[in-house]
Amino acid sequence: MTHTGRHFLQIPGPTNTPDRVLRAMAAPTMDHRGPEFAKLGWEILQAIKPVFGTTQPVVIYPSSGTGAWEAALVNTLSPGDKVLCFETGHFATLWQEMAEGLGLEVEFVPGDWRHGVAPQAVADKLSADTERTVKAVLVVHNETSTGVTSRIPEIREAIDSTGHPALLLVDTISSLGSLEYKHDEWGVDVTVAGSQKGLMLPPGLSFNAISEKALAASKTAKLTRSFWSWEPMLEANKRGVFPYTPATNLLYGLREALSMLDEEGLANVYARHQRHAEATRLAVRGWGLEVLCADEREHSGSLTGVLVPEGHDADKIRAIILDRYNMSLGAGLGKLTGRIFRIGHLGDFNDLMLAGTLAGVQMGLVVAGVPIDTTGINAALERLQRS
Amino acid sequence: MTHTGRHFLQIPGPTNTPDRVLRAMAAPTMDHRGPEFAKLGWEILQAIKPVFGTTQPVVIYPSSGTGAWEAALVNTLSPGDKVLCFETGHFATLWQEMAEGLGLEVEFVPGDWRHGVAPQAVADKLSADTERTVKAVLVVHNETSTGVTSRIPEIREAIDSTGHPALLLVDTISSLGSLEYKHDEWGVDVTVAGSQKGLMLPPGLSFNAISEKALAASKTAKLTRSFWSWEPMLEANKRGVFPYTPATNLLYGLREALSMLDEEGLANVYARHQRHAEATRLAVRGWGLEVLCADEREHSGSLTGVLVPEGHDADKIRAIILDRYNMSLGAGLGKLTGRIFRIGHLGDFNDLMLAGTLAGVQMGLVVAGVPIDTTGINAALERLQRS
Amino acid sequence: MTHTGRHFLQIPGPTNTPDRVLRAMAAPTMDHRGPEFAKLGWEILQAIKPVFGTTQPVVIYPSSGTGAWEAALVNTLSPGDKVLCFETGHFATLWQEMAEGLGLEVEFVPGDWRHGVAPQAVADKLSADTERTVKAVLVVHNETSTGVTSRIPEIREAIDSTGHPALLLVDTISSLGSLEYKHDEWGVDVTVAGSQKGLMLPPGLSFNAISEKALAASKTAKLTRSFWSWEPMLEANKRGVFPYTPATNLLYGLREALSMLDEEGLANVYARHQRHAEATRLAVRGWGLEVLCADEREHSGSLTGVLVPEGHDADKIRAIILDRYNMSLGAGLGKLTGRIFRIGHLGDFNDLMLAGTLAGVQMGLVVAGVPIDTTGINAALERLQRS
Amino acid sequence: MTHTGRHFLQIPGPTNTPDRVLRAMAAPTMDHRGPEFAKLGWEILQAIKPVFGTTQPVVIYPSSGTGAWEAALVNTLSPGDKVLCFETGHFATLWQEMAEGLGLEVEFVPGDWRHGVAPQAVADKLSADTERTVKAVLVVHNETSTGVTSRIPEIREAIDSTGHPALLLVDTISSLGSLEYKHDEWGVDVTVAGSQKGLMLPPGLSFNAISEKALAASKTAKLTRSFWSWEPMLEANKRGVFPYTPATNLLYGLREALSMLDEEGLANVYARHQRHAEATRLAVRGWGLEVLCADEREHSGSLTGVLVPEGHDADKIRAIILDRYNMSLGAGLGKLTGRIFRIGHLGDFNDLMLAGTLAGVQMGLVVAGVPIDTTGINAALERLQRS
Repeated sequence: MTHTGRHFLQIPGPTNTPDRVLRAMAAPTMDHRGPEFAKLGWEILQAIKPVFGTTQPVVIYPSSGTGAWEAALVNTLSPGDKVLCFETGHFATLWQEMAEGLGLEVEFVPGDWRHGVAPQAVADKLSADTERTVKAVLVVHNETSTGVTSRIPEIREAIDSTGHPALLLVDTISSLGSLEYKHDEWGVDVTVAGSQKGLMLPPGLSFNAISEKALAASKTAKLTRSFWSWEPMLEANKRGVFPYTPATNLLYGLREALSMLDEEGLANVYARHQRHAEATRLAVRGWGLEVLCADEREHSGSLTGVLVPEGHDADKIRAIILDRYNMSLGAGLGKLTGRIFRIGHLGDFNDLMLAGTLAGVQMGLVVAGVPIDTTGINAALERLQRS
Repeated sequence: MTHTGRHFLQIPGPTNTPDRVLRAMAAPTMDHRGPEFAKLGWEILQAIKPVFGTTQPVVIYPSSGTGAWEAALVNTLSPGDKVLCFETGHFATLWQEMAEGLGLEVEFVPGDWRHGVAPQAVADKLSADTERTVKAVLVVHNETSTGVTSRIPEIREAIDSTGHPALLLVDTISSLGSLEYKHDEWGVDVTVAGSQKGLMLPPGLSFNAISEKALAASKTAKLTRSFWSWEPMLEANKRGVFPYTPATNLLYGLREALSMLDEEGLANVYARHQRHAEATRLAVRGWGLEVLCADEREHSGSLTGVLVPEGHDADKIRAIILDRYNMSLGAGLGKLTGRIFRIGHLGDFNDLMLAGTLAGVQMGLVVAGVPIDTTGINAALERLQRS
Repeated sequence: MTHTGRHFLQIPGPTNTPDRVLRAMAAPTMDHRGPEFAKLGWEILQAIKPVFGTTQPVVIYPSSGTGAWEAALVNTLSPGDKVLCFETGHFATLWQEMAEGLGLEVEFVPGDWRHGVAPQAVADKLSADTERTVKAVLVVHNETSTGVTSRIPEIREAIDSTGHPALLLVDTISSLGSLEYKHDEWGVDVTVAGSQKGLMLPPGLSFNAISEKALAASKTAKLTRSFWSWEPMLEANKRGVFPYTPATNLLYGLREALSMLDEEGLANVYARHQRHAEATRLAVRGWGLEVLCADEREHSGSLTGVLVPEGHDADKIRAIILDRYNMSLGAGLGKLTGRIFRIGHLGDFNDLMLAGTLAGVQMGLVVAGVPIDTTGINAALERLQRS
Repeated sequence: MTHTGRHFLQIPGPTNTPDRVLRAMAAPTMDHRGPEFAKLGWEILQAIKPVFGTTQPVVIYPSSGTGAWEAALVNTLSPGDKVLCFETGHFATLWQEMAEGLGLEVEFVPGDWRHGVAPQAVADKLSADTERTVKAVLVVHNETSTGVTSRIPEIREAIDSTGHPALLLVDTISSLGSLEYKHDEWGVDVTVAGSQKGLMLPPGLSFNAISEKALAASKTAKLTRSFWSWEPMLEANKRGVFPYTPATNLLYGLREALSMLDEEGLANVYARHQRHAEATRLAVRGWGLEVLCADEREHSGSLTGVLVPEGHDADKIRAIILDRYNMSLGAGLGKLTGRIFRIGHLGDFNDLMLAGTLAGVQMGLVVAGVPIDTTGINAALERLQRS
């Protein structure tokens, strides 16, 4: 079946890249050692900071987000250092596997993939660590595999309550530019991000926002690092340039995307995502289905995980929706394979795109034979009728 | 309010230009007198024919559709010639005004803007014209201002039944590439079309498909013509070129758009438009509103005109929908100003874009205070659940 | 032979469209009846004026330049009106043919295609016209077929010296945005232009700048007009819109191109073109070849016509250059077919593009066996070494 | 000074990205876990192989070339392993610094930056290594900082002549897709490449072509690796996908660039680069200047390093050329800072672009007051007159 019209890319990233960004990226590549590039580089390195809620340095890698995970670890830690991780989902699991692979000692606190990191668990673990062997706490702000957030400010408080000096490393890959985030105010030491979600770019750029404490840690950290090393990056960035060839055309796109976020206003961006998430949950519950996230305080603003009733295969439903309705939804990953699908409602998005998305999910569920209440869509529309 | 996401351009043209076409148009302009252009020109001049259902010449103007209206008249008629026109809506009215302005004598049969041309009326008028003073019958295949079609094959039969030699000139501006159309089989003499509707291009190209009879008429027709003259066009077209500078980059887009129509298959294109029109009518009637088109045989596949209840201003509703939901709808034109809005569902379109569109109309009606039954959307989705 | 790298489009238009303009044109088409379009339309209609050197209205057609020729005539003249034309080249010849075809009486003063319009000839003809039967004088500012300009201010003076009331209609298709031009100051009544030369756009837009006197003439002019009629255009333009569908995406490009001209500054634009023309003539004469233009006051800043020595076919040379060096040059047109080639050096252009162009011409001449002095290029480079 | 026309990006990479590639990259990002992506991934992973001259796996990283350097080392070597490096220029120096930083023991054979790796030196060093402690020989095929190549087949022979089992790792960052290269036939173990040179893409992709021997080495290599690890990459690549988010839009561009190389034919691509390099040397020597490369067998086909006479600062000359002629040239790097400039003549390039480039260099040298013979350009054009 030939697909017509615009594809609905409703995975939780990469997101629907705006035309403006794609056109900006189509400008001819320039000399990355020339004066015009230095101006571009400097401009972007400043303009990216508010999105992280920081006035401290943000490092930009020509790589995807997985690289920025590695960067956060290898710049701050040494072989054998202990890190505290929490099983909030597939990506938290992958990140701790990476940590282990890099030679760190990982304590991985089990979880049910339906809750964020419990601040109390953090406090308990760190309190018990009287030797201060834990060097870093790793938290995924918004689990892309589940649609569950972790409450970073409360986690920060939990750490502080114990007086423990561990670094706080936070993955915001699917939250940055979509959910409220404050690197400085929340006392995060390294914030990890990627280009292809709330930043509305294609994949290919990743980020580390770096606190003074993290920077200090990097002076003594012993994990091997070269490509990911902050030091030459920060040094070159002072002049708006990079120590090796940057992904120039993606940077053109980033400049445009940052302008778009600025034009809308970050507060409006965050409110829009919450509104769409709320409408989505109303539809899901209206259908009689269950949202994966089990704690009302932890719903993600950027995606919603939907549990499929017993006896139905979420991947078959997704395949039907892709084939019939030209829409991509996120698969259940890891232990959730086949049990959920994920609706991305982040990035360059609006009410009617969400309405089309929810209509497509509803119709796909019907076509797939999942018994649902088809007034689900109406519940969402009622929400979207309100400003 | 800053708009985010993709605009829903649901006027009945210009339509949502596909990215593929826009990218094709962004290729560098080439020498229109060089060998590469001649190849392009030739290819397009052949590939456009099936869309008109013709094997006869199709002329391409670097102008918008209004120019092709003029071309159809000035190439076939002489000052003082009588033409028979039917008031099916705003564009039929404008076309006969143009005819009059060009020095033709127009008989304009009144209509209620809710019906197409009645074949019987054509037969009656032509039968009565025993002197054969009527030189051409002008029909708008799909009235963009109303969403009502005229049944061309039946009109052809009506003409033939009288043995009258009048030419049949048909405007397919908002039907070509969306509704089934057969220039040759239906015995049309000049078919007028534009680029910005079913052909999925930006505005800037227009077309005349020309029968042998029309071509013969052009040899003796005396209306002044220069830019619009078929003769030098047809002569140059034999070599794939044009007598004056063509709109090269729009032709790049046309080549791409013709490929897309060919990939989908014209039969599928037509079926898709009918399906979306049907779903739209189900929504409109589900809301408790009235579709403008009053004859079930004459519903347009490319747009739907919706009557707004007394006491409501269609333009205010449209303004709310544009502001709140980032969607453009068509206004009521001429005598329908404020009384209807028009939903375009043509061009590069799909089920979820339609669902988003209908959701936007529904929400906008609610926000505007129009009393409707909000299960309208469900009726449409039920239709779209079926293949 | 597969061509690599960027094509050198050195015909005298269409010119090398800048990437910025092509990207601007790739934005999604918008509703031409909506508020955003009206803003765009208004902005462009103001921004275009300085390029014409006018504060009076400029009308924009969705058509190529040939249409704007027709518009200039049909809006200001009546059947049988006498117009005075001068044979300065191929396009002057075509324009007077069009005038004749439209029912005007043309006096066509012969010329040798190597000189512009002689102001004295204008004075002589108009002085002799004691009955004031001549209604308009038609002049091509910059003959695209020869590279010879006509001195409009002196022609204006010549007309004024006779006290003759004839309108002055000027074709600036290949000069506007390249050569200095002052519609108001020079007392031109209608200025005709197109998008694909100095305005750096693809073909598809054309223009009429209109004096008060021309506007007054249009009130009584009787030539048939519909698509080209100024009246509804000027009326709609007051609100930033158009009486029929405009070529929206080309207007996006026009906005961008006007920004580029404004950033560079018109005085700099004109100086740049003169400098490149001068360097080109130095090369041509350095090769030992003859520039077609025979009057030093009348060299075109936007293109140079080059006479090919007896026994050589200019079109074969052009074919070699296209094949071997991936460069398009302009052909000799009409009576100059095969005897000249034309080098376009207008639009979005710079010194190194010109150097590459001249190198290509030089190499092509050598390859074609034309005996030349290969220090021609050096003469040009010496000129380009000076600011 | 406002620059007009097209910038001449004549650094030895990033190169002038073809419009076709930029437009391909502007397509909407797709789901990297969906069936359409797997098809794309598979297609590219096959189509890239001939460019490397291999039938073995080629791994694609979403990173710039520096990352692929790291990947080559960390996948094949263990901490403390000895590697043999040769000081052929700036990038050879950086690569061995990286090796040292990663914990390898480096023997760095000094060089004068005007010669490639001497095959005899390789043989001598390896013969002397009777303990077989050297685990890898690192060679830069085409030193981007100097324009000097190393003769890989002779180096291979030299290694073989000693019977030494060391791996051969080759950097082809500025040669792949420009200079003849045969990973399999030449017995290279890891070939390192980047997207922004001969592959005609913006920066952001890098590559490792991997021999069976290298793959075997990776099973026991102990350097820490995660992002760069071949194993999960090769595993996922079997299905056309990637273990983490790929740089989708750059992959669209890669597909297009590979089509372009295929259309031209690799043999033609290589011949074109040699021809342009030869013409460039003729110009340089014609000016009376010295080409940096001191061995006629080792001239680079993709760039030319030009020594500036004593008393002149190459960077000032480059600044003049950028300012006056809108052209970027490569700077002297490391110990060559200020002493040379580099002319890139690689990627999507043609004769007239080269002519413009050389004209710009010549004029810039004159403007900068460097005493040169201005017939240099003529020597180059004479070469380009021959097929």
